[in-house]
Amino acid sequence: MPGPDGRSMDGAIEGPVGIAGLGVMGGSLARALSAWGVPVRGFSPDPDEARAARDAGAVGEIAPTVEASAAGVRWWVVATPLSALPAVFSAGARSAPPRVIDLASLQAPALAAARGAGLGPVHRSAHPMVGSERSGFGASQAALYAGAPVWLSRAPVAEGGGALDREVEAFWRAVGAEPAWIDAAEHDRRMAAASHLPQVGANLIAALMEDAGLSPADLGPGGLDVTRLAGSAPEMWLDLLPHSAPALVPLLERLAEASAELARDLENHDHDRVATLLARTRRWRTE
Amino acid sequence: MPGPDGRSMDGAIEGPVGIAGLGVMGGSLARALSAWGVPVRGFSPDPDEARAARDAGAVGEIAPTVEASAAGVRWWVVATPLSALPAVFSAGARSAPPRVIDLASLQAPALAAARGAGLGPVHRSAHPMVGSERSGFGASQAALYAGAPVWLSRAPVAEGGGALDREVEAFWRAVGAEPAWIDAAEHDRRMAAASHLPQVGANLIAALMEDAGLSPADLGPGGLDVTRLAGSAPEMWLDLLPHSAPALVPLLERLAEASAELARDLENHDHDRVATLLARTRRWRTE
Repeated sequence: MPGPDGRSMDGAIEGPVGIAGLGVMGGSLARALSAWGVPVRGFSPDPDEARAARDAGAVGEIAPTVEASAAGVRWWVVATPLSALPAVFSAGARSAPPRVIDLASLQAPALAAARGAGLGPVHRSAHPMVGSERSGFGASQAALYAGAPVWLSRAPVAEGGGALDREVEAFWRAVGAEPAWIDAAEHDRRMAAASHLPQVGANLIAALMEDAGLSPADLGPGGLDVTRLAGSAPEMWLDLLPHSAPALVPLLERLAEASAELARDLENHDHDRVATLLARTRRWRTE
Repeated sequence: MPGPDGRSMDGAIEGPVGIAGLGVMGGSLARALSAWGVPVRGFSPDPDEARAARDAGAVGEIAPTVEASAAGVRWWVVATPLSALPAVFSAGARSAPPRVIDLASLQAPALAAARGAGLGPVHRSAHPMVGSERSGFGASQAALYAGAPVWLSRAPVAEGGGALDREVEAFWRAVGAEPAWIDAAEHDRRMAAASHLPQVGANLIAALMEDAGLSPADLGPGGLDVTRLAGSAPEMWLDLLPHSAPALVPLLERLAEASAELARDLENHDHDRVATLLARTRRWRTE
């Protein structure tokens, strides 16, 4: 089965694949699979989005319901917002195949939702480290996962779970990604610092700039970079932030302390302390 | 005089131009002028950097001293760190031509330094809104100023100063930049919010990430963007931050308050307030 870049997928993903949610994450996966000739059945709560995915060739068949996206497929991929996972897993649980993946950005709540729907043993959580400040199927692209790290985690599983682990790894390698296993709680702590902190940091800094009477047109390349994430879709982050609050709140409290401390250092002409901060982060960022 | 992109410079810059400082800013200007055939005499306190600029064809003649870079030229451009301006202006004042420009990122202290050296009437401050987290002649490029906004400011000048204003505007237009006049104090307030705040914000967030055990390899594209400026040269910012402290300290104090407030909102599940912040900055950043 020759793919778009001439490599052979060698049957690494046997379809059909059902995908619930056709936004930038699910839509990009649908595009990649369809480009390799894997049959995809897609569901979107937005009929226009489903039709757009079909018209783009990303989805061969539109599933009329969540349940229909899970029935009769070999893989079921749930690419909905995190807060929708409990309802979506429950809706598909009865008909779901023994290979279920979600793409949520936080994994402890995703595992809990799967367990709550009785899907624990057949479910793995997969967080591709990709994304866009744009959202929806219109922002999807077949190459989104090429070269992307994908964090995988699982609930403690029954005997024989290792076979599914290997199948899930092969699934992601087949679309060009680089999967690696992690503990779900550790994953979520890392995401709070690596992803949620810079997101809200960009929001906070952008709000101060607006208060100062600036517009993005007043910024140089550095200021534009720092505030790019401030353009992210609020609904995506309102879906995640309540779940990451336990890890994120202490980071924000430390950001508050560090900002106040730097203000004091500048006011007191304590430039040695400022120099220490600048030298330390330069080393970290450029090494 | 045909330039590298086929346009004619039409004598807009009559040389020779003396440039004191051949880092990324002065070096890029030297490259652009030399590419148009304008004679450039350059000084660097680092003999290796001066030789590199001559070997690259950016500088036709190496000036052995600051004074020599100012003597017998038509324009004298001072492209040193802000903190060096008083000494450099004083060194060149006696021999300087009646067209003196500095490229400092803060203009009230630059104007004060020129006034202190008796150069007020013949000096204009020019801040090109370009830059790089890299520094030194090795990071210079002939096209750095193409399309770049350049803020111009001046001290209250004697009668007849308008002619120099127009010459300075034409100078920057000739290297492809877009000059505009601004009040120096207003410029410096804007820079504190548009440039210094995102710089130190990136430093603060990067330090928290390092504390959390992350390395840049753990970041997605968003986290990399937000922290890119954390790789900036400390010496450049240690040169500027003491001067921008009066405007920057209140911004850092407000960043501290806003961070603590967001932490409280998340802790109290006050998601309406979080939503307001996210929606507001998305509108600002994407409109």
